[in-house]
Amino acid sequence: MNLQTDVHRFPLADPGDVQGLRQAIATGLVDPREIVAVIGKTHGNGLVNDYTRGFLTQSLAFLISGATGETPDAIRQRIPFVFSGGVEGVLSPHYSVFTVTETQTAESGEKALAVGVAFTPELAPGDVGRQRQIELTAEAVIRAMQSANIQSSSDVHFVQIKGPAFTLAEILADADAGGRPASDNPGKLMGLGRAASALGVAKALGEIPASRAVESAIGRDFEAFSSVASCSAGVEVRANEVIVVGMSSQWSGPLAIEHAPMKDALDTTGIRNALSGLGFPDVLQLSSKQASRLRAVFVKCEASRDGVIRGKSHTMLNDGDIDQQRHIRAAVGAIAASVVNDTAIFVSGGAEHQGPDGGGMIAIIAERAA
Amino acid sequence: MNLQTDVHRFPLADPGDVQGLRQAIATGLVDPREIVAVIGKTHGNGLVNDYTRGFLTQSLAFLISGATGETPDAIRQRIPFVFSGGVEGVLSPHYSVFTVTETQTAESGEKALAVGVAFTPELAPGDVGRQRQIELTAEAVIRAMQSANIQSSSDVHFVQIKGPAFTLAEILADADAGGRPASDNPGKLMGLGRAASALGVAKALGEIPASRAVESAIGRDFEAFSSVASCSAGVEVRANEVIVVGMSSQWSGPLAIEHAPMKDALDTTGIRNALSGLGFPDVLQLSSKQASRLRAVFVKCEASRDGVIRGKSHTMLNDGDIDQQRHIRAAVGAIAASVVNDTAIFVSGGAEHQGPDGGGMIAIIAERAA
Amino acid sequence: MNLQTDVHRFPLADPGDVQGLRQAIATGLVDPREIVAVIGKTHGNGLVNDYTRGFLTQSLAFLISGATGETPDAIRQRIPFVFSGGVEGVLSPHYSVFTVTETQTAESGEKALAVGVAFTPELAPGDVGRQRQIELTAEAVIRAMQSANIQSSSDVHFVQIKGPAFTLAEILADADAGGRPASDNPGKLMGLGRAASALGVAKALGEIPASRAVESAIGRDFEAFSSVASCSAGVEVRANEVIVVGMSSQWSGPLAIEHAPMKDALDTTGIRNALSGLGFPDVLQLSSKQASRLRAVFVKCEASRDGVIRGKSHTMLNDGDIDQQRHIRAAVGAIAASVVNDTAIFVSGGAEHQGPDGGGMIAIIAERAA
Amino acid sequence: MNLQTDVHRFPLADPGDVQGLRQAIATGLVDPREIVAVIGKTHGNGLVNDYTRGFLTQSLAFLISGATGETPDAIRQRIPFVFSGGVEGVLSPHYSVFTVTETQTAESGEKALAVGVAFTPELAPGDVGRQRQIELTAEAVIRAMQSANIQSSSDVHFVQIKGPAFTLAEILADADAGGRPASDNPGKLMGLGRAASALGVAKALGEIPASRAVESAIGRDFEAFSSVASCSAGVEVRANEVIVVGMSSQWSGPLAIEHAPMKDALDTTGIRNALSGLGFPDVLQLSSKQASRLRAVFVKCEASRDGVIRGKSHTMLNDGDIDQQRHIRAAVGAIAASVVNDTAIFVSGGAEHQGPDGGGMIAIIAERAA
Repeated sequence: MNLQTDVHRFPLADPGDVQGLRQAIATGLVDPREIVAVIGKTHGNGLVNDYTRGFLTQSLAFLISGATGETPDAIRQRIPFVFSGGVEGVLSPHYSVFTVTETQTAESGEKALAVGVAFTPELAPGDVGRQRQIELTAEAVIRAMQSANIQSSSDVHFVQIKGPAFTLAEILADADAGGRPASDNPGKLMGLGRAASALGVAKALGEIPASRAVESAIGRDFEAFSSVASCSAGVEVRANEVIVVGMSSQWSGPLAIEHAPMKDALDTTGIRNALSGLGFPDVLQLSSKQASRLRAVFVKCEASRDGVIRGKSHTMLNDGDIDQQRHIRAAVGAIAASVVNDTAIFVSGGAEHQGPDGGGMIAIIAERAA
Repeated sequence: MNLQTDVHRFPLADPGDVQGLRQAIATGLVDPREIVAVIGKTHGNGLVNDYTRGFLTQSLAFLISGATGETPDAIRQRIPFVFSGGVEGVLSPHYSVFTVTETQTAESGEKALAVGVAFTPELAPGDVGRQRQIELTAEAVIRAMQSANIQSSSDVHFVQIKGPAFTLAEILADADAGGRPASDNPGKLMGLGRAASALGVAKALGEIPASRAVESAIGRDFEAFSSVASCSAGVEVRANEVIVVGMSSQWSGPLAIEHAPMKDALDTTGIRNALSGLGFPDVLQLSSKQASRLRAVFVKCEASRDGVIRGKSHTMLNDGDIDQQRHIRAAVGAIAASVVNDTAIFVSGGAEHQGPDGGGMIAIIAERAA
Repeated sequence: MNLQTDVHRFPLADPGDVQGLRQAIATGLVDPREIVAVIGKTHGNGLVNDYTRGFLTQSLAFLISGATGETPDAIRQRIPFVFSGGVEGVLSPHYSVFTVTETQTAESGEKALAVGVAFTPELAPGDVGRQRQIELTAEAVIRAMQSANIQSSSDVHFVQIKGPAFTLAEILADADAGGRPASDNPGKLMGLGRAASALGVAKALGEIPASRAVESAIGRDFEAFSSVASCSAGVEVRANEVIVVGMSSQWSGPLAIEHAPMKDALDTTGIRNALSGLGFPDVLQLSSKQASRLRAVFVKCEASRDGVIRGKSHTMLNDGDIDQQRHIRAAVGAIAASVVNDTAIFVSGGAEHQGPDGGGMIAIIAERAA
Repeated sequence: MNLQTDVHRFPLADPGDVQGLRQAIATGLVDPREIVAVIGKTHGNGLVNDYTRGFLTQSLAFLISGATGETPDAIRQRIPFVFSGGVEGVLSPHYSVFTVTETQTAESGEKALAVGVAFTPELAPGDVGRQRQIELTAEAVIRAMQSANIQSSSDVHFVQIKGPAFTLAEILADADAGGRPASDNPGKLMGLGRAASALGVAKALGEIPASRAVESAIGRDFEAFSSVASCSAGVEVRANEVIVVGMSSQWSGPLAIEHAPMKDALDTTGIRNALSGLGFPDVLQLSSKQASRLRAVFVKCEASRDGVIRGKSHTMLNDGDIDQQRHIRAAVGAIAASVVNDTAIFVSGGAEHQGPDGGGMIAIIAERAA
């Protein structure tokens, strides 16, 4: 007996629309007790005042609760719901449901897609962007790897983390109570939290030595990064929720995952490298038939801090009308979509210490070619 | 004796920054009397209240005026300044200066890049989106072709038009004075003007029969479109300013232009078709060396009106925070930039009757391979 | 035995925060079976892609459902949840819960605050902004008045309506199915729906003759308006939900309501007229003590269509960055807040046929002075 | 012989519209050689990427240059052009031209409106928000007072300063060149510059002791503020441009200025105090006739840093769609407009150390009642 994970992607008409999963449960396609994680892209701005993530979380928790008999709170403590707001440009709102099934399949010896989850304790505003978040995240990543039966760090291809964001009121209350918030700017604190989470991943996977996985490296040591981390933050969660996705010979099934770093916003070679590892070599653009084998695409990106891409200025960091994250998601999301021929991809901005500085990373889950 | 056109592209630190052209004039690289047109991408939102286009126009008119002794007004009546606001995502602000030089080069028999310009009479709010704009534009296109010595419509690869936009106050004043504005919504009137201008181009070039180049086709007959038209509108101009770019055997020089329609936002085949015609076959991404041969890239795009791209929903038309044009420019601009390896490209949203419905077009000027 | 209505206002930390009502139920302050309507102001943009209204609706429906044993769906069919997105400027997110209690109080002969609700049947995109919406709304207003035991139209001081909005996909689907949507622009259709709803109110209350409460009057006959209607639209509802608030001698209790039209955005006389009717004459700004007697303030406003306020231009209708409704809510909301000394007020933009053209209305519920 | 200053206010159809002043010069109403300062409110977002301020500056410099024969550069070195972007809500774009005339009027003994200007040396990004900016500003204020013949600090009612803002590219270049920019966030650096400028004013006028006018007080010692300073920043200037406005017995004419602090966003008492000093006591709203005596209204405001106004939460500091400055300008601008019955008022956000924390100030120039 071994394990098999499946990934079901559903379109999202609005952040309260759980029709896709409801139907999949009704028809038996998805067993609600087997759901271990949900990752998705919702309609909001992806910034502090984005409540579409919380709306979808609540809607799914109520749906699954109704199906399994667990309370909504128990559902939220068992299943990480990692939603990133912002479907700029061609991006299409959707959510991907990960399930784990015990099977009687004989072990093939070949590695297959594996998934594991873990949670840190709750974090206060004063913990975010601090050493405590780095350490707790690193521990949670180890636990998630263990629960996924992934032995080697090199078999980890994607670590998605959703950590807490806080509104101004919460930050000020924490400071009043003796906390030490790293910033009283809610948006900036989100970025510090993503950075600390990424350093935690890099430490857990041995991508950097423990001596560099320190609070003081945040926003300074840009060579300290994780190539597989994708970190978001949102007001709808209170702990770091960790999802580790990789390959393991103790799992079976037709799915596989690959990843590659993206050196900058225009690095389509990174995208093609990831596709190549999944059996799609030298792709101009996946055909519709090829694209139908994709189960999920995750992209992390950021507006380069020096204001330049390949020698020419961009204006994203000077813009008072549209946040830099919305700009870069629209751009890199479209580039990735144009190569993989699919717009229902997860694109998250703010790649602090996630992939090379000014770039990011891509991870792709697909059915292996027959 | 024949003619040669050159295209000089300058970066734009801010919309009043004319340092690039100033220096090129100072060093003799550009003869200000030979400037025939300027096309560029400025920092604003590209909508009604975008004043960056007017700022750059004024700045360049004063600069050239100082260099040639003409008045700024005379400069603006002689030279079309076509600026599109909106450098979303990776796009880089810049402007491209077209010059025409008389040369003693013997005719090679080969076609070379040719350019011609023309202006319609001034248009009132009540003319915009109306038959009068269609007819006056068609006539101006014919005149511009003649001034470019382009005999055949099939040698026209790009027609850039900048027409007037009006603020609410101007629209209401025109209505009060007996005008018949096609809309009292300033943003909507911009779109109607782009559509009428495109139909004028299509009529002039024989892309559609005159019977379909009619006011009533706007927003209805989506099969009536021009494959080479790129139309913008802005409050800083009062007439339709027309720039025709094509190939002619009466011109010489190393530059050439190609174009291709884009069927939808993800149509990278269109981009690659245009590159292929310029001697860059099967491009994943131009190398830096190849990209250095590019002189200008023009893209027209739009958010598909049915809310769907390749079967998946986009959200651009429901968004109250970011205008649909800003979304689609960010996305298609990034896709084009990722193939041509250049972010200083001209990307204009609102492709009404400009290329296939839901898509648009791309035109590229490059030095021919040696 | 007669009836008494109470109004409980709760702050809203985020659109899923129902802590205030939860506690009020827990302490017995509010009996959940007595809740008849909820009106509030949430964090979103108040436009088509505002999902904060739906999030709060779902959160409250689940809370009340848990308290009464009714299903969440039954709650939503019994209680109108009318939320307007957009807390621009100084405005503070909140919601006001209306309860109705049967009391043994002897009738005092004096009128007291009375409330009644009703729903139209579900409306399709093709019904919005059409005669059908006008008629169904008028009928629902009559029913709500009856349920409130308000005999005379002159005793109606406030009619709040929340009608459906539709996304592009829904509009196009309706058109495909043979519907006749009045616009395929989701934002514009919201406005037409508000207008039709307002004409329905005006007809029901005899503010205009039936002959002027017609579809063709929308956006044309600006003298046809209701002085007490406040209409919103949102994707989270499917019928017109109608709340009528007025005075009736069959109700008792310390609360009263007054209203006044606002002639334009700066009409503080309108605000002072409404206060005056509640026993606050000649107010510069209510004192904190006076303001503590306020239970709810409702304001409707719009950016004047001619682009002018008291002879000077505004720019709200030319703005491509911030929607006109967000501008005007920020402005008129602040003006009202500065007079009533309270920022937790309900301000809704888009006052088509609701109050004088270019202006709007204000209604205030307060405890009568002892 | 003594001096007289006049203030001419012109509407602004777009940021390149100098028609009002052009006509005033043509008719002799304004002598262009007598212009000493221009303060105005333009159409942009008031943030880093607001180029409407520079557009109007360029347009006016060219106009005045054409009229006086000075070069545009000389004009810009002689006349401070202080423009604040952002006409949110009801605000109306406009600019106010200050002129100074020598007159033969006998001294009346009564004080009259007086104005003086001065410039600091150019400031680099590394000077902004630093002690150097504080000191240079304080010195410039003293010089401007002297040029205005204002002897006592208590006669200074308004000090408008426009200091430089820098784009990301400029900030990074300065850091590379050994500068020490106080922030690499362009928007944040604007705020630090406003703060340092305000401390410079407070020091010069003796509002705070020199020991508190220090770099380390910025963002910390909120009791250290100026009650008459109004500081803006913009990419279109390179030095701190200082305009001091007050009362002096060496000037004559019918104009006077008053100012008052505003304790918070709703502090209409502050507005009424300023009006009261000009002979308008107990104003609910100025009548049209009274308002016609206004020559200029200047307001400075900010979103309170604790997220609360009079005990209720605002959401301005959590908003990723609309900048906090645009919110607060819309709100406080509308409140002031509703009292003074005039929408062509100058409202500037970001009141760091300008007036009480969480509040701001108002200054009003008006013709004295006959």
